Amino acid sequence: MTPKITRFLTEQVPATPCLIVDLDVVEQHYHDLHKALPDGKIFYAIKANPAPAILKRLVSLGSCFDAASLQEVQMCLDAGADPKHISYGNTLKKPSAITEAYAKGINLFVFDSLEELEKIAQHAPGSRVFCRLAVENEGADWPLSRKFGTTTAHAHTLMLRAKELNLIPYGLSFHVGSQQTGIAAYQHAIRAVSTLFNDLCHEGIDLQMLNLGGGFPTHYREKIPPIYDFAKAIDDALTEYFPHKRPEIFLEPGRYMVGQAGTVSTEVILVSRRGGAETDPRWVYLDIGRFGGLAETEGEAIRYQFRTPHDQTGGSTSPCIVAGPSCDGIDILYEKNRVAFPDALKSGDRIEILATGAYVSTYCSVGFNGFPPLEEYYI
Amino acid sequence: MTPKITRFLTEQVPATPCLIVDLDVVEQHYHDLHKALPDGKIFYAIKANPAPAILKRLVSLGSCFDAASLQEVQMCLDAGADPKHISYGNTLKKPSAITEAYAKGINLFVFDSLEELEKIAQHAPGSRVFCRLAVENEGADWPLSRKFGTTTAHAHTLMLRAKELNLIPYGLSFHVGSQQTGIAAYQHAIRAVSTLFNDLCHEGIDLQMLNLGGGFPTHYREKIPPIYDFAKAIDDALTEYFPHKRPEIFLEPGRYMVGQAGTVSTEVILVSRRGGAETDPRWVYLDIGRFGGLAETEGEAIRYQFRTPHDQTGGSTSPCIVAGPSCDGIDILYEKNRVAFPDALKSGDRIEILATGAYVSTYCSVGFNGFPPLEEYYI
Repeated sequence: MTPKITRFLTEQVPATPCLIVDLDVVEQHYHDLHKALPDGKIFYAIKANPAPAILKRLVSLGSCFDAASLQEVQMCLDAGADPKHISYGNTLKKPSAITEAYAKGINLFVFDSLEELEKIAQHAPGSRVFCRLAVENEGADWPLSRKFGTTTAHAHTLMLRAKELNLIPYGLSFHVGSQQTGIAAYQHAIRAVSTLFNDLCHEGIDLQMLNLGGGFPTHYREKIPPIYDFAKAIDDALTEYFPHKRPEIFLEPGRYMVGQAGTVSTEVILVSRRGGAETDPRWVYLDIGRFGGLAETEGEAIRYQFRTPHDQTGGSTSPCIVAGPSCDGIDILYEKNRVAFPDALKSGDRIEILATGAYVSTYCSVGFNGFPPLEEYYI
Repeated sequence: MTPKITRFLTEQVPATPCLIVDLDVVEQHYHDLHKALPDGKIFYAIKANPAPAILKRLVSLGSCFDAASLQEVQMCLDAGADPKHISYGNTLKKPSAITEAYAKGINLFVFDSLEELEKIAQHAPGSRVFCRLAVENEGADWPLSRKFGTTTAHAHTLMLRAKELNLIPYGLSFHVGSQQTGIAAYQHAIRAVSTLFNDLCHEGIDLQMLNLGGGFPTHYREKIPPIYDFAKAIDDALTEYFPHKRPEIFLEPGRYMVGQAGTVSTEVILVSRRGGAETDPRWVYLDIGRFGGLAETEGEAIRYQFRTPHDQTGGSTSPCIVAGPSCDGIDILYEKNRVAFPDALKSGDRIEILATGAYVSTYCSVGFNGFPPLEEYYI
């Protein structure tokens, strides 16, 4: 939590639950990633947080954008992005969305199947296309490998087909999974795609671009490798597997760019030992839960850190189960990975949930149990 | 899907994805439940679908309401409900919410812990309170037992404490879990609470009410027992365990009341065999997924039925994996419980998802991946 956010919370005391994002932290992460991987062109994965303030700040820094839908394409344009700096990065696109994006000047589209490729050829003729490969997602807290990507063999066929369809076979992409903490995942993937680059080159298809996807982690409870370690591993792998000519490198950071920038402020609704005995676990119920934005606590995949008003008092703590405010039985945040809250914690206390800038504001439900969507502040 | 919904879809051809709810089906279910359990007072669990049109229709039928939040209390009042017909049925309530609900005339509150009971005593003095017991949720597709409810022993203590706090110890409640298909669950729970009724009676606390919660199932893919079987089992258990004086019976149906009334209309974005081989499974990607309202497909818990334009042609079918439109890897609806879709199914086809009236509209995210919330039509 940054001093700017602390000051905002102290001075404004906004109603809970709410999300406060420090835009300077987003900018810092943009610079850090750019410095770590100067060869990489940054396409911010808007889905992590599409707030206009974030998009405008990134436009001013020269960022490119990875859009998951026509609506996200429009958000970038509204923030002042050049359509040439936008990649339509969802392998699932309605024909009408392709047509409209194309009309707005988008000419870079991803695909991972013949059917999608044919749709792009029909509705965005002559565009640049890149094929998403399925790669190992081991080490990722939020894997993406089952739903997306194809085999290198099929990608080979599809890239040849792309050329026949008068599209520009532009590059290849992969995604090692979100909140990927294993450096090796990138190395293995780069090796796999380099072979396909070579094979296609021999068939007269000179791919220009390698899209490394996102996945760079943000710091939650567990320690993560610094971005420079990822950058070094990626750079080494590129040197090793692309010794003659290095392709243009695209990066699609989402969580990495905005995660640390955000803090959720929440109120404790109830602290109870439901069985009544001192030996029963304490349940801490907050006014935000899985349906108020903390969707990534599903399966306790993302394990956030908390700050309470009692942390500095040196009082005793004990592990608590943490749950959301709804009547839904699955609205439990942490039961296996309990949180050591101060024994002094009580109903009415305001606590902060750290590193909540990514994948919180938009997962939020429109009104489950009548609770309104999360308020957001960008400062 | 009712003829009224079919006609609406044919005549209006609304943009997808959207939810259409036939209010007459809601009314029919109200009457059916009332007929099956004439002793039961129906408190519609608003959280299942809080649409004003549904609430107004139910007010006109004389229904009572189970509200999960202050906002839901207000929705009922806005629909014309008498505050005396509203139960504040969430064991998690902010003090400010209790105060406001009390000021609006609500005087029936649930609790399952000493801490919550004390909050109610302070902010809604003199109100009627009921204690939620934790009961076995075996047989429920959407269990609720870990997060809510206390032991009978502790409930005993708490009801005595309620009296000391000048509250009215009014009754007991339990919840057998949502989409409960086992009739025995109600019987076991009624037996357990009857003992507590007797014990408290001996201590001078004459409880008036037994709240059987919700849980009554709606028909998805698998066959479920008719509501009359549940009613008979409940009636028999009440006769057996409350032989002298039967308490006032409250019911909190949500899914049962509105599930069958709704149909989601969705468009197929893509049908693909991602590996390219005929032996690869077909993936069917829809324009609605887990974050567009179908949240209860988490863990494939709720298994919806589908209708396609090819169902009547007698063509071949094969099992498909079904997924949503977002870039999120967990936005997969059915992978284990595959859906036998016609082999003729293709991108652009409109299909219907049946029995989607409950727990769809409000789970929907505010805009994950840029997709706007589900459009809703109440006819």
